Amino acid sequence: MGELRALCAIPSVSARHEAIDPCAELVSRMLERRGFATQVTPTADGGHPIVFGRAAGANRSRKLLFYNHYDVQPPEPLDLWHSPPFDLTERDGSVFARGSKDDKGEFVCRLAALDAVRAVTGTYPCDITWLAEGEEEVGSPHLPAWIDQHESELKVDAAIWEEGGIEVDETPIVRLGARGLLYVELSVKVLARDAHSGQANLLPNAAWRLAWALAWLKAPNEKIMIPGFYDAVRPPTPREEELLREAPKGAAEVMEEFGLKELLGGVTDVNRAYFTPTCNIAGIGAGYQGEGSKTVIPAAAMAKLDFRLVPDQDPHDIHAKLRRHLDERGFGDVQIEVLGAERPGLTDADAPVVKLVAEIGEEIYGKKPRITPLTGGTTPMFLFTERGVPVVAPGVGWGAMNRAHSPNEFMRLVDFERAARHIARLAVRFAEQ
Amino acid sequence: MGELRALCAIPSVSARHEAIDPCAELVSRMLERRGFATQVTPTADGGHPIVFGRAAGANRSRKLLFYNHYDVQPPEPLDLWHSPPFDLTERDGSVFARGSKDDKGEFVCRLAALDAVRAVTGTYPCDITWLAEGEEEVGSPHLPAWIDQHESELKVDAAIWEEGGIEVDETPIVRLGARGLLYVELSVKVLARDAHSGQANLLPNAAWRLAWALAWLKAPNEKIMIPGFYDAVRPPTPREEELLREAPKGAAEVMEEFGLKELLGGVTDVNRAYFTPTCNIAGIGAGYQGEGSKTVIPAAAMAKLDFRLVPDQDPHDIHAKLRRHLDERGFGDVQIEVLGAERPGLTDADAPVVKLVAEIGEEIYGKKPRITPLTGGTTPMFLFTERGVPVVAPGVGWGAMNRAHSPNEFMRLVDFERAARHIARLAVRFAEQ
Repeated sequence: MGELRALCAIPSVSARHEAIDPCAELVSRMLERRGFATQVTPTADGGHPIVFGRAAGANRSRKLLFYNHYDVQPPEPLDLWHSPPFDLTERDGSVFARGSKDDKGEFVCRLAALDAVRAVTGTYPCDITWLAEGEEEVGSPHLPAWIDQHESELKVDAAIWEEGGIEVDETPIVRLGARGLLYVELSVKVLARDAHSGQANLLPNAAWRLAWALAWLKAPNEKIMIPGFYDAVRPPTPREEELLREAPKGAAEVMEEFGLKELLGGVTDVNRAYFTPTCNIAGIGAGYQGEGSKTVIPAAAMAKLDFRLVPDQDPHDIHAKLRRHLDERGFGDVQIEVLGAERPGLTDADAPVVKLVAEIGEEIYGKKPRITPLTGGTTPMFLFTERGVPVVAPGVGWGAMNRAHSPNEFMRLVDFERAARHIARLAVRFAEQ
Repeated sequence: MGELRALCAIPSVSARHEAIDPCAELVSRMLERRGFATQVTPTADGGHPIVFGRAAGANRSRKLLFYNHYDVQPPEPLDLWHSPPFDLTERDGSVFARGSKDDKGEFVCRLAALDAVRAVTGTYPCDITWLAEGEEEVGSPHLPAWIDQHESELKVDAAIWEEGGIEVDETPIVRLGARGLLYVELSVKVLARDAHSGQANLLPNAAWRLAWALAWLKAPNEKIMIPGFYDAVRPPTPREEELLREAPKGAAEVMEEFGLKELLGGVTDVNRAYFTPTCNIAGIGAGYQGEGSKTVIPAAAMAKLDFRLVPDQDPHDIHAKLRRHLDERGFGDVQIEVLGAERPGLTDADAPVVKLVAEIGEEIYGKKPRITPLTGGTTPMFLFTERGVPVVAPGVGWGAMNRAHSPNEFMRLVDFERAARHIARLAVRFAEQ
C-alpha cells in the first residue's frame, strides 16, 4: 500500500487543475520502475498530460491496453470525512482516501497483478500498453484528440478499462457499455451588481431566470422537455434484452444504500433504467447562501447540469437542442458553457475477451458473473469500441458503494487482492488466446 | 468622523451574529456621553440586545423618539470592495464602509445634529428617547415583543425613523410607509449524502425538487402563483392616489443606475410599483459550485426568499398560504423556516410632524419635497404607526444609490451635513409644536 499512499497523497483534483503534473510524473515513474518505456505527453489547449507507457511481452502478437486515470473528484464536503481525504488511512480491512478506489486504487491493483506475473514468469505475457489520463473526472475533454493523434500506437486487441468489479452480493460483474455525457454550466447575469430586494418589482433577478429556465428542462415526472432530446434513443437490441433479463435488478441494493422506500419514479430494474438518459442538476448557486437572511437581488446565477446519454445520442446534438430550446422559451440570456462531451460506448457481448473475463471472474469469486449491457456512469470507452477494440473492466470492489465520488471513499483490501488475481490470470490467458 | 469610523470598524453583521455585543456597548457609550440614561436591554430567545436611552429636554410635554439600528448587512462579495468594508475610508468627498450610510452613518448624523442644538441652547429642546436595535437587517424578529414589553416607556408624540433622505436630483423626500416582509429559507433534503450522478435515474435530486417548487411560486411574468397571495392587497386610497400623482416616477433613475433599457415588466412608475408585493429569490445553493465539473446528485438544497408585502397583507397569513401551496403542489418535502416577518406600516400623510419635516426639507435643500406613500423596502415602523405614533424619516442621502446593501456602500459628506441640519431644526421646532 506504500505506492497507493504516495499516489493518494497528491490531491490531483482535475476540476481545479490541482497537483496534476506531480501526479502524472509519479504515475510515469511507477511504470518505468516496471520496465515500461513511458512518456508524459501533453494534450491540446493546455489540457492535463496523458501518461503513455509500453512494454514488450513474451507473445508480441497479442496486445493488451490498460486504461486508468490519475485525477480525482473534489473531496468536498470536507467535514464529512472521518480521516483526511488525501491521507490514506487503514480501518477495518479497508483503506480510505479520495482515489483509494477511483481510480488510483485500481491502477495500483493492476500493477500488483502484473508484478506477480513477472515474478513468476520473468516477463509480461504479451505486449502491454498503458494509458493514464488526468481528466476523466471532468469528462476527458482532450482524450479524443490525443487518441486520434496516437492511433497508430494504439492498435491493440483489447482494452482493460477502469471501474467494474463486483455486485453488492460479491457476484462479479462484466459491464459492456457506458453512457455518454454532456456536462454544461448554465449562467445568467442580469445586473451589474446585486441590488436591494426592495427593488424586486423593478429589477430582473438572475436566480429567478435560472429557476424558470431549469423548470423548462425537466418536469417533476422526470420527462426531459428539450424538443428532440429522445430522438436518437434506441430501444435495447434483442441481445441487450437477453442480457437485461439475466442481469440483476439491483433496485433493493440501491434503496438500502440510500435508505429509500422506492427509487425515482418507481424504478425496479436498475440496469434497464440505464437505457434512459438523464438531466441532473449537479450544482446551483446564486445570491446569499450564508447564515440567516440577506435581502438582495442576485445579479448572477449559475447551474451545473449533466446529461447521461444512451445509444445513439450524441452530446453535440443535445447541446444544440438545449440551446435552441432555451432560446425558444425566452431564455436567450442563459449562457451555456460545455465542460464535457462524450458519446456512449458499447462492447460486443460475444467478444472472446468478454468470455475470458467472465470465466476468470467465476473462478475468483465463485459465482457466475452477471453481464450488464450498460452502466449508469460515463467513461470514454467509445474511443476504443468505435475503433473495433473490445473493452472490459474487471475492476476492484463495488463502485458507487465505495463512495467513489463522495466523502469517505474507500477500497476493501479483500477486493484489491481478488481483483489483482483476476487481472493476473486475464493477462496470462489473454496472451494465449 | 472619528465616532463613525469606530462604529464601522465593528463588523456587526446580524445575519451571522458577529460583533453584536461590542457594537451595542459602543452605541450605548456614545449616548451616555451625551447625557442619556441608557440600558443595553436583552431581547427574547437570545436575540440581539436593544440599546434604549432617554434624556429630558426643555419642553417635557413633547417627546420625540429616534429609531436606528447598529447591525449591518454582510459585506460579501468581498472582492468587489475598493477599500476594506470595515475600515471607513474617505475618497472624493464621501466615506466608504459597510454601514457608512445604513445605518451607522445616520445614527452619527443625528448625534451630530443634537450636539449642535445642545451647543447653542445648552439643552435638548424636548424629551428624547433613543431605540437602537441590532436585528433590522434580518427582519427585526425580536423588536415587536420588546416593544410590547416596554410600551409604557415608549409613549412618544412622533418617531424619527432610519433611512429616508433625498432623491437622485437632491429633492428631499418624505416617505410615509414601508412594505412588510416575509423572509423564509426553503430547504429540501432527499438523500443521506450526495450521490454519483450516474444514478440520476434512480435517486431523487434536491436541487431539482427546489427548482420545481420555486417555479410554482412565481411565473416568468412576475405573477405570484400562491393561491390567495393577493387577497389582502388593497388599492391605493384616494389620498395615496393623490400622493402618487405628485410623486416622481423614478424609473429613469433606476434604469440609469443599473444600466437597463427598461424596468421589469415595463414598470414606469416606481412609487406605484411599490404597491405591488414581491417574491424575490435572495439566494439559492446546492451541490457542486466550484470550478469545472463534478458529477453529483445533491442530497440537499436551499433557497432564501423574501416577500415584500403591501397593505393589508400579513406575513403570517402569507406563510400559511405558502405552506399550503407547496403541500398541494406535491412539495411537502420542502421545509420552510421563517427568518423574518413584519407587517407594512403607514403614517398619516396629514400629521403635523410630516408637514414639519417637509417644510424644513424645503429650507435645507431648496426644493419642494416629494412625499411618497410607500417605499420598496421594509422597516418595522408598523410597531409605532399601529399605535398611532406618526413616523417620519428625514435621512442622509439617497438610499439604494448609496449601495446600502452592496459592495462599496458610501455616504457623501455633503449629505451628512445637510441631514444633520434637517434633524437639528426638526428637533427644535417639533418641541414648539
